[in-house]
Amino acid sequence: MRVLGIDPGLTRCGMGVVEGDVGRPLRLVDVNVLRTSASVPVAIRLVTIEKGINAWIEEYEPDAVAVERVFARSDVSTVMGTAQASGLALVAAARRGIPVALHTPSEVKAAVSGNGRADKAQVGAMVARLLRLDAPPKPADAADALALAICHIWRGGAQARIDAAVAAAGRRTP
Amino acid sequence: MRVLGIDPGLTRCGMGVVEGDVGRPLRLVDVNVLRTSASVPVAIRLVTIEKGINAWIEEYEPDAVAVERVFARSDVSTVMGTAQASGLALVAAARRGIPVALHTPSEVKAAVSGNGRADKAQVGAMVARLLRLDAPPKPADAADALALAICHIWRGGAQARIDAAVAAAGRRTP
Repeated sequence: MRVLGIDPGLTRCGMGVVEGDVGRPLRLVDVNVLRTSASVPVAIRLVTIEKGINAWIEEYEPDAVAVERVFARSDVSTVMGTAQASGLALVAAARRGIPVALHTPSEVKAAVSGNGRADKAQVGAMVARLLRLDAPPKPADAADALALAICHIWRGGAQARIDAAVAAAGRRTP
Repeated sequence: MRVLGIDPGLTRCGMGVVEGDVGRPLRLVDVNVLRTSASVPVAIRLVTIEKGINAWIEEYEPDAVAVERVFARSDVSTVMGTAQASGLALVAAARRGIPVALHTPSEVKAAVSGNGRADKAQVGAMVARLLRLDAPPKPADAADALALAICHIWRGGAQARIDAAVAAAGRRTP
């Protein structure tokens, strides 16, 4: 199973592709952070993010896309841009009929480290260990995107089959 | 000048097309409200909204798109979906090189009614009067989308030319 994890953001949008299955070793396929400048109008920044996500979906053909669930109670100065970027990620997957799932930050932290309140350093260290990397991926958005993909693979199974059925139903809708 | 106004939302997304120029009569071209059901996964709902917006941009070929600016301090239960829908509207315009502008609710109310704190009934009544309709457009999201388009036409002029230059610059970016 190949999963694209997306940690949405307007300034930095993390994207990480991981291959693996429950109970089998994980493999890092690729990781990147899309960056856009605050000096550019929001609409243009969002187009850059959409193009970047589309390019990776086409290149890596993931079986599923996992996106971090954004909460309205997050930091007010960034939450709007984060929500807009997350919407683009959801649409990029769903319009192709690729199953897409949302995972909360605590679900992701708990999945990779066993602790839903793990800090960024712990998440980065566990991602490095699970993917057999020499060092934690930088910046944190890269590690978070990989952690999302790992979380999705490990939470997979039944939920992935439900998501696939939902996505297929969406694809049949005119 | 033909403007597509979009009042973004996940449950109801208002779209209104108005033609006109500063100091000349306005004309209603079309108005609609896209609806999606809360029983459908968010990703699928967003795809429906994206398709609806794309279809109208292709059918009506607006010279500009005006989108309501969403604030993080808005109603927490709906703000995430509203932000996601607004991101799709911005991208739908910007990826085609169509100038896109954000207007705040008070800018829109002030433009159509002279009062930045006008209520929904006042906005609806003024939209009906300006477009020579027999009654205010229903639901309020339809009237709001038309008010956005009118606001953009009247605030147009210099700002529209700046937006066009920015959009053209974005289009040249690889």
